[in-house]
Amino acid sequence: MPETGVNSGVDLHLELAATGGRRAALITALRDAVRAGRLAPGTRLPPYRALAADLGLARNTVADAYAELVAEGWLTAVQGSGTRVAERAEPLAPARTPKKAPGPPKPQHDLRQGRPDATAFPRTEWLAAARRALTVAPHDAFGPGDPRGRPELRAALTQYLARARGVRTSPDRIVVCSGFAHALRLLFPAVLPGPLAVESYGLAFHRSIFAAAGVPTIPLALDENGACVEDLDVPVVVLTPAHQFPTGGPLHHDRRTAVVGHARATGGLLVEDDYDGEFRYDRKPVGAVQGLDPEHVVYAGSVSKSLSPALRLGWLVLPEHLVDAVLAVKGEREAWASVLDQLTLAEFLTSGAYDRHIRRMRQRYRRRRDLLVGALAERAPHVVPTGVAAGLHAVLRLPPGTEASAVKAAAWQGLALDGLAAFRHPAATMSTMDGLVVGYATPPEHAYAAAVDALCRALPPA
Amino acid sequence: MPETGVNSGVDLHLELAATGGRRAALITALRDAVRAGRLAPGTRLPPYRALAADLGLARNTVADAYAELVAEGWLTAVQGSGTRVAERAEPLAPARTPKKAPGPPKPQHDLRQGRPDATAFPRTEWLAAARRALTVAPHDAFGPGDPRGRPELRAALTQYLARARGVRTSPDRIVVCSGFAHALRLLFPAVLPGPLAVESYGLAFHRSIFAAAGVPTIPLALDENGACVEDLDVPVVVLTPAHQFPTGGPLHHDRRTAVVGHARATGGLLVEDDYDGEFRYDRKPVGAVQGLDPEHVVYAGSVSKSLSPALRLGWLVLPEHLVDAVLAVKGEREAWASVLDQLTLAEFLTSGAYDRHIRRMRQRYRRRRDLLVGALAERAPHVVPTGVAAGLHAVLRLPPGTEASAVKAAAWQGLALDGLAAFRHPAATMSTMDGLVVGYATPPEHAYAAAVDALCRALPPA
Repeated sequence: MPETGVNSGVDLHLELAATGGRRAALITALRDAVRAGRLAPGTRLPPYRALAADLGLARNTVADAYAELVAEGWLTAVQGSGTRVAERAEPLAPARTPKKAPGPPKPQHDLRQGRPDATAFPRTEWLAAARRALTVAPHDAFGPGDPRGRPELRAALTQYLARARGVRTSPDRIVVCSGFAHALRLLFPAVLPGPLAVESYGLAFHRSIFAAAGVPTIPLALDENGACVEDLDVPVVVLTPAHQFPTGGPLHHDRRTAVVGHARATGGLLVEDDYDGEFRYDRKPVGAVQGLDPEHVVYAGSVSKSLSPALRLGWLVLPEHLVDAVLAVKGEREAWASVLDQLTLAEFLTSGAYDRHIRRMRQRYRRRRDLLVGALAERAPHVVPTGVAAGLHAVLRLPPGTEASAVKAAAWQGLALDGLAAFRHPAATMSTMDGLVVGYATPPEHAYAAAVDALCRALPPA
Repeated sequence: MPETGVNSGVDLHLELAATGGRRAALITALRDAVRAGRLAPGTRLPPYRALAADLGLARNTVADAYAELVAEGWLTAVQGSGTRVAERAEPLAPARTPKKAPGPPKPQHDLRQGRPDATAFPRTEWLAAARRALTVAPHDAFGPGDPRGRPELRAALTQYLARARGVRTSPDRIVVCSGFAHALRLLFPAVLPGPLAVESYGLAFHRSIFAAAGVPTIPLALDENGACVEDLDVPVVVLTPAHQFPTGGPLHHDRRTAVVGHARATGGLLVEDDYDGEFRYDRKPVGAVQGLDPEHVVYAGSVSKSLSPALRLGWLVLPEHLVDAVLAVKGEREAWASVLDQLTLAEFLTSGAYDRHIRRMRQRYRRRRDLLVGALAERAPHVVPTGVAAGLHAVLRLPPGTEASAVKAAAWQGLALDGLAAFRHPAATMSTMDGLVVGYATPPEHAYAAAVDALCRALPPA
């Protein structure tokens, strides 16, 4: 054997080649590799035919060596599963004990916002789309990718977003990315240096991205018509117009017009975070603001709510004058989003599977919303659910000063959920809103009723 | 219809709900939506049953409306493909003419380095692995992901890297990422602030990542034994020990030991870029340096050379004391690498499909290497191919001062390839090396012989 360490654990074929083809030497080398942990317990060995071919040995020589080591207990041969390193062999010793991830025990009921029902991912339909997409994909799909994203996906998104969200664009103005957080990282600060206006209530994670990018954010007050865009005093603003996150209302018609007018007048931009635009349960249409003025709105969406955050796929629909700047940040090749998933999503969209999935999920979430609203009306009529016309969460408004204790009471009932305070911009000057943010998409179907029941028990009395 | 723009192009169901259920109004609304481009040519309409259910209309009403619009030429009904917006309808007008990506015409022969044969992606085997993986995956795989990566993949990598590359680790010390460039971004500057030493010849793209991160790099000279690590005067160094990129040799045994010793003595680190470790054609084993001292080496690998850069999957194998720091940069959830691809790769590794693919590709690339070396020996014996024991590229050394004209001559022959100058660190002080970097993995199988022929024609005479 070579000096320990330097040549340890190299490709098995290469290492064993040093045995010079003798059966005894092969056995010794394999035994040493197992003992030293270079072949870890459970590792599957190459089929003896393949190893024999690679080493230039007779098949019988390798088969004999395997049989000998199985007899000695170093290896195990399992019908249909090949030959593996036996579990009784010395395991690969970690240099230190692996740490367990710290954190509280898992709560019984998960009503956190922002997560679609993970049990509802359309595995069969997705696999069928993947099969169709990968079968017909041109070979160049498996080479270095266009940083804008696959053309199949950008074409499919152009059609889908026009039809479902009123977005006016062309495939050349779409840039695929890994989700909304990645979209923000592409834009700020290289393309849009800031300062920028944001809503007084929003996702702390997004604020942390701006902070890390050195981009100052100015909170806009919210009222019953959404963000008070008439207060805007910087050119760039990030909003959630279809369904304010987390308070839940749409941006009023007049303000949609006003925010676009402001962008035009100042040479600024609206960054439109359309995080759950597909999920509306009432018939009042709320299209994307982008359709009003594609040259003054950056539209951002993803599949994180509609399909799964596990896909890591999102998109930016850009004014033409920003495309090159965003690509300069993203790089010369696709370095982020899986091209295989991009091809599959394109097929999923064009085949109608996406529409079917959205329709199914819309029905499911609408039922959950109705169950929540009904349970509250019956058991806690003093608690007003708001923002329930759309999306995957509701806000239960509470009397001033009662939120913190309500969140604590919920935790005692085994409920994971957030209060509105968790979403408030630290520099917000508008009056504090008390309320619980109830994500009704998170639990699996069978666990939802129990979660709503626990929630009703945890709510403060009238 | 509502005011143009503000409510344009909203979800079809919602928009049409405003028709109040009358057949004539439904027809008008659909016609307007097509004319205004909100329904783009080719867009598939929902099945009439689904639309009727959503709008609370009789099926016949919607079916009649579709039939009328097909008769008028707005829609087309294709057997088995549903009802679509006709191509003769006014297309969605882009606000400006989409730009064509600029650049030279595609060269006839592509011998650029760094690209595996895109025609060889194992589509069928990958889809089979995806089917097995997605069928058995737990539901939580479709929720927010662990930023370290899926446990199935980290377990599979632990075994595979031990067996194939001599890497000693445990799943807790592996962090999945989107490829080597992402790995560098995770490490520099937050985890390792620099300055750091790099090889005098390397990928300019990597140097640009260090520059963007504000991390100064100090070039190390190269000789026939690899990087001159005895010259190291900073604690952190990034190397390609198995196969120096691009010059092609392995780091000498004594220097492997020396670089680890330097890291131990200085509290520093080796970042080991094992970009093509699987592709060796000779039997001399070159395992990962990481196996010598897992607490002083960061090992980085990816599937970009072994399977495809389209997957955007790579991994960092970290010393235990760096795991938390890397995760702090990566974030609380998986924001980058597709969980579906991670699950599939785990299955691909454990099922043996990865080994089979590597064996197949190793044979293919070895044949190409042999064809190249043979053609040069016959037609340009004065040109010495080096770095050919491994990897997906060769370096053809040229007499001093002749590289630039040779690259130009190659371009005239329709060849895309780089000279060594493209890889030289701008601050390198070692003497200049002249040579062509020939990527023999890039062309599809049928085009390779012609590319080698064109190369031989383009080489300078003796």
